[in-house]
Amino acid sequence: MSLVVVGSVAYDGVETPHGKVDRMLGGAATYISMAASYFVPVKLVGVVGDDFAPEDAALLASRQVDLEGLERVAGGRTFFWQGVYSADMNDRATLRTDLNVFADFNPKLPESYRSEPHLFLGNIQPALQKNVRGQMRGLKLTGGDTMNYWINDFRGELLETIREWDFLLINDSEARLLSGEQNLRRAATRILDMGPHTLVIKRGEYGAILFRRGMHFMAPGYLLETVFDPTGAGDCFAGGFIGYLAGRGVGASGGAVDAAELRRAVIYGSVMGSFCCERFGLDRFRTLRRDEIDARYQEFLNCTAF
Amino acid sequence: MSLVVVGSVAYDGVETPHGKVDRMLGGAATYISMAASYFVPVKLVGVVGDDFAPEDAALLASRQVDLEGLERVAGGRTFFWQGVYSADMNDRATLRTDLNVFADFNPKLPESYRSEPHLFLGNIQPALQKNVRGQMRGLKLTGGDTMNYWINDFRGELLETIREWDFLLINDSEARLLSGEQNLRRAATRILDMGPHTLVIKRGEYGAILFRRGMHFMAPGYLLETVFDPTGAGDCFAGGFIGYLAGRGVGASGGAVDAAELRRAVIYGSVMGSFCCERFGLDRFRTLRRDEIDARYQEFLNCTAF
Repeated sequence: MSLVVVGSVAYDGVETPHGKVDRMLGGAATYISMAASYFVPVKLVGVVGDDFAPEDAALLASRQVDLEGLERVAGGRTFFWQGVYSADMNDRATLRTDLNVFADFNPKLPESYRSEPHLFLGNIQPALQKNVRGQMRGLKLTGGDTMNYWINDFRGELLETIREWDFLLINDSEARLLSGEQNLRRAATRILDMGPHTLVIKRGEYGAILFRRGMHFMAPGYLLETVFDPTGAGDCFAGGFIGYLAGRGVGASGGAVDAAELRRAVIYGSVMGSFCCERFGLDRFRTLRRDEIDARYQEFLNCTAF
Repeated sequence: MSLVVVGSVAYDGVETPHGKVDRMLGGAATYISMAASYFVPVKLVGVVGDDFAPEDAALLASRQVDLEGLERVAGGRTFFWQGVYSADMNDRATLRTDLNVFADFNPKLPESYRSEPHLFLGNIQPALQKNVRGQMRGLKLTGGDTMNYWINDFRGELLETIREWDFLLINDSEARLLSGEQNLRRAATRILDMGPHTLVIKRGEYGAILFRRGMHFMAPGYLLETVFDPTGAGDCFAGGFIGYLAGRGVGASGGAVDAAELRRAVIYGSVMGSFCCERFGLDRFRTLRRDEIDARYQEFLNCTAF
C-alpha cells in the first residue's frame, strides 16, 4: 500500500542569510515525497525535462520513492524557480520562475498507481487535481493544498475540486482568502462547509491548527536554534502529515477519521517541516533517520504537555 | 498571603474595529491585579489623581484588590493613554500619552504589604522596580516585565534590576532587543544568563513560551472567534501567570521551582489574556467567574493534547 503524491518537481536557486545555492532539486512533490517516505512507500507523479539529473532521481529512489509516474519530456527543461529570503526569513522574493515543461503538465497515472488508497494533490491547477483524483479507484483518503493564484482566479474550479477531498491543507493567508474571513476560527468554519471534513491551517514558525467540525487542535512550531533555509518546509509538513496517516492506514469513511491519529499526523508534519529547515533544500533528508524523527516527536510531547 | 502588584493605573481611550471608548479604567497594574484576583488576594501599588472615579475604585475592591497602596495625588490627574488599533488589531498607534501624576511615581509600600511572599513588578522605570523589591522582606517569588524604552535607554539599570528576579515576562520583540538575538531560543539562553531562572516570552495571538535552562514549554494562544479589544491582554496574561503561582504558594528556593506549576501558570496566563480580549477594557471581568476560567483551561488541554 503506497501513497500517491502529485505536484511539481523543480530546480531551485535559493539565497538565505546562511548562503546561496544556484541550483538544487526542489518542487512541492519532491519535498512531500521525501518527507512522507519515512512513513510509507511513495509513488510520485510529476514532470521533468531531459536536464533532470540522474543523481536527483537516485536521491528519490534511495528513499524508495517510485518514479514510474515521473514523466520525462525530451527536449524540454525542468521547472526552475529562484528566490531570495529576507534577513529574518519570514519573507521571500521570487527572482525568476521558468515553468518550462511544468506549463503543460497533464498528469496521467500509471496503471500501477490507480488502486492505491491514499492520495495527496500538491498545488497545481485545480482541474488537474480533480482529473487525477478521477483516475484513482478505491481511495480511502484524499487531500491536498492550493495557493492564492487558484483561489483568486480559478475559484469555481477550485471549489468543484476540493468538494471531493477529505482534507485541505493551506496556510493562514490562503485560509483567509478562501473564506473571506480574517478570524481563523470563522475562516475554518466556512471552509469546512466547502466539502473537506478536515482542515489544516499552517502558520509557518507558529505551527499549525487542525480543524474539524466542533473541534480543533493546535500544534506549535518547533523552536529551531538556526533556520538555514525554509524552502519546502510547508511541503514537508504536508509530507509528514499525509505520510503518517497513509502509513497507519487511516481512512475516512463518511468523514469519520480517527481524531487522535489526525493530531499525531499534525505533529509529525511539524517534525518534518522543522528538519527541512536545518539544511539547504533537501539536504537534511540525505542523513535523517526515523529514530531522529521519533525523538523530535517526543520533544514535541515534552514541550507541550501540562 | 497576598500578591503585591506594582505598576500603572490609568485611563485609556481606545478605538478598535468594534467600537470606541473615550475613557475607561486601564493601566498595567489594574489589568494584572484584576486577572490575578481570581487566584489570590492582591495588594496594588500605584498612583492616581483626584479624577480617579469612585466606581473604578469600587470595581477593584469588588475583586478584593487592596488599594491601601494606591497613592492619590491631590490636584493631580491620572495617567491617560489614547490609541487606535489597525483593522486586524495586530498593530496600534498611540494618539496621546499624558503621564500626569505617573511621571513622579515613586512607590512607597504600606507596612502591611512588605512581608507578602509574592511580588510582580509591572513596567515602570527599572530603578523604581529595584527600589520596590528592596522594600519587601521574605519574598518567595519575584518577577516582572519591562519594555523597549527601558531596554534601549536604561540598559545598565535594567540589568541591575532583573538580576534579582526569579522570572522575567516580556514579548518576543523585547526579548530580541534585550538579548541581541533574532532567534528566540538563542535569545532565551542569553536572557537566562542575566539572572532570572525563568523567562516567559509572550507572542500575542500565537501564545507564549516558557524557558528555563535546558527546557521550554510552548502554549498556544486561545483561538477567539472575535477579538473586541486586545488592550491589556498581555497584562492579564501576567496576572493569570503570577496569580496562579501565588495562589498555589509556589516559591523559588535557589531557582528550584515546580516546573509543572510553571506550565500550568502559563496556561492560566493565556486563559486570562483571552478573556480580556472578549470585551472592551476590563469589562469582561465584571462578569467573569472562576468556573469559566477552569472550563477554558480544560479547553486548552483538549486542543493541545496528542
